[in-house]
Amino acid sequence: STPNYESLDYEVCENTLFQDEQREQLAERFSLRKDIIRWIIFIQIGIITALIACSIDIIIEELSELKYQFLIKSVQENVPLSDATEGDLVIPYLYWLLFSILPVAFGAAMVTYIEPITAGSGIPQVKSYLNGVKIPRIVRIKTLAVKAIGVITSVVGGLAGGKEGPMIHAGAVVAAGISQGKSTTFVKDFRIFKAFRDDHEKRDFVLGGGAAGVSAAFGAPIGGMLFSLEEAASFWNQNLIWRTLVASIISVFTLNIVLSAYHGLNDFTFTGLFNLGKFDQPLKFDYFELPIFMILGVSGGLLGAAWNSLNTKINKFRKRFIPWKIGKVIEAVVVAIMGVTLACLMIYFINDCRPLGNDPTNNPVQLFCEDNEYNAVAALWFQTPEATVRSLFHDPPGSHKILTLALFTVVYYVLSCATFGLNVSLGVFIPTALVGAAWGRLLAMVTFYFFPQAEFLHPGKYALIGAAANLGGVLRMTISLSVILMETTGVESSFFFPLIIALISAKWVGDYFNEGIYDTQIQVNHVPMLTWEPLPQYKGLTAQKILSSPVVCIKLRDSAHYIYQMLKKCEHNGFPVVDNVEGNRRSEGRVCGIILRSQLIVILLKSLYVENKRFWLPETSIQTFRDLYPRYPSIKSVRKLDEKINYTVDLSMFMNPSPVRVNPHDSVPRIFQIFRALGLRHLLVINNENRIAGIITRRDFIYK
Amino acid sequence: STPNYESLDYEVCENTLFQDEQREQLAERFSLRKDIIRWIIFIQIGIITALIACSIDIIIEELSELKYQFLIKSVQENVPLSDATEGDLVIPYLYWLLFSILPVAFGAAMVTYIEPITAGSGIPQVKSYLNGVKIPRIVRIKTLAVKAIGVITSVVGGLAGGKEGPMIHAGAVVAAGISQGKSTTFVKDFRIFKAFRDDHEKRDFVLGGGAAGVSAAFGAPIGGMLFSLEEAASFWNQNLIWRTLVASIISVFTLNIVLSAYHGLNDFTFTGLFNLGKFDQPLKFDYFELPIFMILGVSGGLLGAAWNSLNTKINKFRKRFIPWKIGKVIEAVVVAIMGVTLACLMIYFINDCRPLGNDPTNNPVQLFCEDNEYNAVAALWFQTPEATVRSLFHDPPGSHKILTLALFTVVYYVLSCATFGLNVSLGVFIPTALVGAAWGRLLAMVTFYFFPQAEFLHPGKYALIGAAANLGGVLRMTISLSVILMETTGVESSFFFPLIIALISAKWVGDYFNEGIYDTQIQVNHVPMLTWEPLPQYKGLTAQKILSSPVVCIKLRDSAHYIYQMLKKCEHNGFPVVDNVEGNRRSEGRVCGIILRSQLIVILLKSLYVENKRFWLPETSIQTFRDLYPRYPSIKSVRKLDEKINYTVDLSMFMNPSPVRVNPHDSVPRIFQIFRALGLRHLLVINNENRIAGIITRRDFIYK
Ligand SMILES: Nc1ncnc2c1ncn2[C@@H]1O[C@H](COP(=O)(O)OP(=O)(O)OP(=O)(O)O)[C@@H](O)[C@H]1O
Ligand SMILES: Nc1ncnc2c1ncn2[C@@H]1O[C@H](COP(=O)(O)OP(=O)(O)OP(=O)(O)O)[C@@H](O)[C@H]1O
Ligand SMILES: [Mg+2]
Ligand SMILES: [Mg+2]
Repeated sequence: STPNYESLDYEVCENTLFQDEQREQLAERFSLRKDIIRWIIFIQIGIITALIACSIDIIIEELSELKYQFLIKSVQENVPLSDATEGDLVIPYLYWLLFSILPVAFGAAMVTYIEPITAGSGIPQVKSYLNGVKIPRIVRIKTLAVKAIGVITSVVGGLAGGKEGPMIHAGAVVAAGISQGKSTTFVKDFRIFKAFRDDHEKRDFVLGGGAAGVSAAFGAPIGGMLFSLEEAASFWNQNLIWRTLVASIISVFTLNIVLSAYHGLNDFTFTGLFNLGKFDQPLKFDYFELPIFMILGVSGGLLGAAWNSLNTKINKFRKRFIPWKIGKVIEAVVVAIMGVTLACLMIYFINDCRPLGNDPTNNPVQLFCEDNEYNAVAALWFQTPEATVRSLFHDPPGSHKILTLALFTVVYYVLSCATFGLNVSLGVFIPTALVGAAWGRLLAMVTFYFFPQAEFLHPGKYALIGAAANLGGVLRMTISLSVILMETTGVESSFFFPLIIALISAKWVGDYFNEGIYDTQIQVNHVPMLTWEPLPQYKGLTAQKILSSPVVCIKLRDSAHYIYQMLKKCEHNGFPVVDNVEGNRRSEGRVCGIILRSQLIVILLKSLYVENKRFWLPETSIQTFRDLYPRYPSIKSVRKLDEKINYTVDLSMFMNPSPVRVNPHDSVPRIFQIFRALGLRHLLVINNENRIAGIITRRDFIYK
Repeated sequence: STPNYESLDYEVCENTLFQDEQREQLAERFSLRKDIIRWIIFIQIGIITALIACSIDIIIEELSELKYQFLIKSVQENVPLSDATEGDLVIPYLYWLLFSILPVAFGAAMVTYIEPITAGSGIPQVKSYLNGVKIPRIVRIKTLAVKAIGVITSVVGGLAGGKEGPMIHAGAVVAAGISQGKSTTFVKDFRIFKAFRDDHEKRDFVLGGGAAGVSAAFGAPIGGMLFSLEEAASFWNQNLIWRTLVASIISVFTLNIVLSAYHGLNDFTFTGLFNLGKFDQPLKFDYFELPIFMILGVSGGLLGAAWNSLNTKINKFRKRFIPWKIGKVIEAVVVAIMGVTLACLMIYFINDCRPLGNDPTNNPVQLFCEDNEYNAVAALWFQTPEATVRSLFHDPPGSHKILTLALFTVVYYVLSCATFGLNVSLGVFIPTALVGAAWGRLLAMVTFYFFPQAEFLHPGKYALIGAAANLGGVLRMTISLSVILMETTGVESSFFFPLIIALISAKWVGDYFNEGIYDTQIQVNHVPMLTWEPLPQYKGLTAQKILSSPVVCIKLRDSAHYIYQMLKKCEHNGFPVVDNVEGNRRSEGRVCGIILRSQLIVILLKSLYVENKRFWLPETSIQTFRDLYPRYPSIKSVRKLDEKINYTVDLSMFMNPSPVRVNPHDSVPRIFQIFRALGLRHLLVINNENRIAGIITRRDFIYK
């Protein structure tokens, strides 16, 4: 029952119709116009993605503020203010439960009943899409709406998750939507510009959208661009990258305008774009700290790998024992209740009072503390996870007890592990950074406790390194992650080195045990993603070993009947076109091209037969095929052929005449490189006489 | 008489010997070892490149300091200190001439007589190399030495150039040297690790070296990585990029350690890595400034295009009228004299005295000024161009007269244009930034003079935008340039947008007129560089139109005599291997593979014939071929075949059995993409029966 994912057609089919169009367009300077429109779309993607990200951001901020203000007031009413170190937390606890259960239940229900694909962070899905796998419904507007509401409800509900994954997904949806000028959700075709209606163009736009999304989520334009590259690009196309960078920068700029205005600043001076907080002073470090950073990295790798494997186990358990929809909603609620309860217990039992004054928390809670003191435990819990990361980075030394932080780390580690995989929309970046920041800071505090002369143990610095290590251990996206961290905390370039050390060690140690969390999710879902290098077990093989044969082929001129029957019988999406066939032994013919199932269906649907050529030839163009994109009807929607059963199809003007061909003795690493670099869907294996010997698709590199 | 550049063999030849090696290595976990060594080499590249960059940097700083201190003293001795506004500048002028002529003449002589390839910035050459063109002697240690001395002498000599281009070249040389463990200059083979001895691996290392060089030159690790990508990468290989980023970061880190130590700081807190100076306060801007930035961008595009075309004309003139070596040295000296003279005239005739105090210049010169004042004109000239850029970015408003800056801009524009193309080692980045900063600042000052209420006209900000615009107009390297500028000035991400606006407008306007200066240089030298997209005139063509035929082919089993004669007769580097040949009509045979000239020469040299197979077969491996890399002997070094004239060569174990093949009717854009994405050298065109129809090389995409 594993879903049968299909691939995108990134390869451009250069058939006669396409060439005709090209020739026409060459005359009317069409490509310049197309280029300009493409730029405009990329700019729009940047702006709209940022606006959506802003809205999500602001709504979350406002609602969370309301919620925590209310809770604080309730605490203050129920716990006598001064001189009381005892009091009743039951009422606030109940309120807290209420304000967690309501949004979480609502969000989980939306996700479960309306659009299950919106569960999780969305990054694995976008990543798969950019890799060339068609994920159904992933770039629809409905998906975007559910995702946005989902992420707002879950963050406001207090689940251990962040908003960044969904924002990236949002960017992808925006890109697909704008570039296609057509929405399936609203069954509306804006009929503006159709030249971008193919998988190739769409995927390029989605690349830009993803980048804009990352940029908006982190205020990190270069990191955004690199994220898209790291996750997606196979061929380095300079113009595409440049457009992506511009979309990212515009996205960050828009974010800045809106947030500046929202915070009542002029001059676009809102610096909150460093959304993990800018360090006041340049972070310094000493030679002898480098090994410590490396140890932190190794710990990050170990903890991350453990987190990944635990999370995978939990999710397997879930899949098996909670198949019902209502069960998934209840489960989300249970985790929310668990979170609130653990937090309350911590607040109740740990007595960690700190003097008011230079504390950086927005909502100091006095709770069980003297006047002029605030409760450090409550301060950790009474805000969004993102704000807590900021606190851990920037709170002055001595802002927490060791016990507080130790318990917090453990609780959050478990909570985040239980949360990722729930049927809610949530990213994993922020909780991972939070856990890392917590244990990084904790380590510095513990060490400082034993060696009070070690002044280099700046807790904020170690929180940052810990966050990097933990992120490296869980996500393993090294390039973009390092740049995002640099941009999002605004550290000086001299501090890049410690960050990189932590990241590398974490990645290497983690890779020894398992894969990054996104890749794990992709594998669990049996998405046929192509890795960067061929899988190790394929390294010594030749094409011969992985090809499929006999191949279902079509003759250059074949009967409508055969095509119809063949399409009904098999599920493949690409068929070599052959000539020089003896009798019916098509699968030994000589290759002239390749044709896609979708094209064949259009041919049958529109009756593009040789016998009635004069009717359709004048008005048939590449547009005939593009009109039905992206949801070509299935063969079932083609009525029985009856009277046309003996008609003939001549594929020479429809097929792709230049499929990429390799030999049976070519090594798999080599053909893999060709497959990936050119973004292919089908690779034909031919013998020395150009006769078909087999066919290779994405799956054959993974499951054979 | 245009040089006939050959290509690099980026494609891996997967012949039987290679597969044998692979199989052996698979057994001994060789690839893990290779991976580790590769990482170590990348780290070494980062460190050594940074050390070289540091040395160049420090020597230039020290020598320039000495020079200008001496000149200032001489000025002070010859121009009466207080109350004198007249004085004699002749002695200082002569000294200045001396200190310019000596180093420049020395540097120009070194470049001209010892290693002419070191002339210029080196970026075009590195770029060509990374693009796949073999530039003779470009990555030798001797080249590096001459280049280093060359750039020191010319910057100290006061020519209008920067050190960054040569640093990038230095990185490339370091990378090639370290990775090969073999130096042609010292005729030494360190015999350490031979697995990296092929063009593919070497080019990947050079990519990392270039990135490390950029990073060291600008203190911009991400910019460095992107520079390499923008200039070079065709296939986005995640691991390669990651290694490149790490090399860049290590390079910046090393730089930081050394420079911190040099400046007597501990904690690696040297922030001079922002080597165009970090802005004290976040740069602010208003909505209505965006159009102004765009206008600046357009001006940058115009000025840049004019500069490029003027420079090209000057260089053409040079090539034609100054063919003699000594003439080239004299010319460099003349330009140096011109520079000094113009500077002296400006200092003498312009009376621009500013109060001492908050001036940021290191060497205030009183020259013709009252006590407690310094001469703003002298301040501009009495330092390296890089320091002048910093001054223009960071000097407080009102540091110069309008006239001073206007004249300075004009003089420097002309000077830099005359300088680039001299036979000295110099980069064009810094002078271009300087000219841009000058006119940017000038524009702000002039406008402020007319609208004194326009307080947004912060001259430093406009200097930065001007520099970006001018760089965009001259270099047109948009992606890496923008990131380098962001990193090297440490602006906040909200200011990326203005920078991008200026860069884009400059690039677009400039592109309308001509190409970037590096590309122009490449074209002038007839280097067959592949652009990103096929040239416009090729867009509508098919492979048929650009292929070469008849093709010189070799039979799978062919006579030594034929091969020997054929190699003597023609100069091609790749020959299709065919079978199924009727008589001698090889060029109509059926394709089985392709073989390189260098391989054939090794076969002849080592007498690898069928007839004496038992002698060589056991000891022949891929290493036999790799040993001679990279300088394979020419066919002339093969002695006449005499007794072996009738021997036979069987190519089946030597040839590359999987050449990429296309059809005659494939479109040029498509085959171009394949050619570029796979880094090919030869592309075979075959007909429907797999018989050879033609061959396509790099040149055919450019000159046909
Ligand atoms: N025309 C064909 N004839 C025979 N086998 C094929 C053909 N096309 C694909 N296969 C094989 O069938 C298996 C499943 O491939 P599948 O039919 O899903 O390919 P596809 O749908 O055309 O491409 P994708 O699934 O990547 O979109 C693979 O092992 C593949 O090699
Ligand atoms: N074996 C061949 N037979 C016939 N023509 C060839 C052959 N090889 C190359 N050519 C053609 O000769 C011209 C010059 O190519 P050249 O001989 O320089 O190629 P090469 O040296 O093999 O490759 P490169 O110059 O890129 O290193 C090109 O137009 C090319 O198409
Ligand atoms: Mg399929
Ligand atoms: Mg050649």
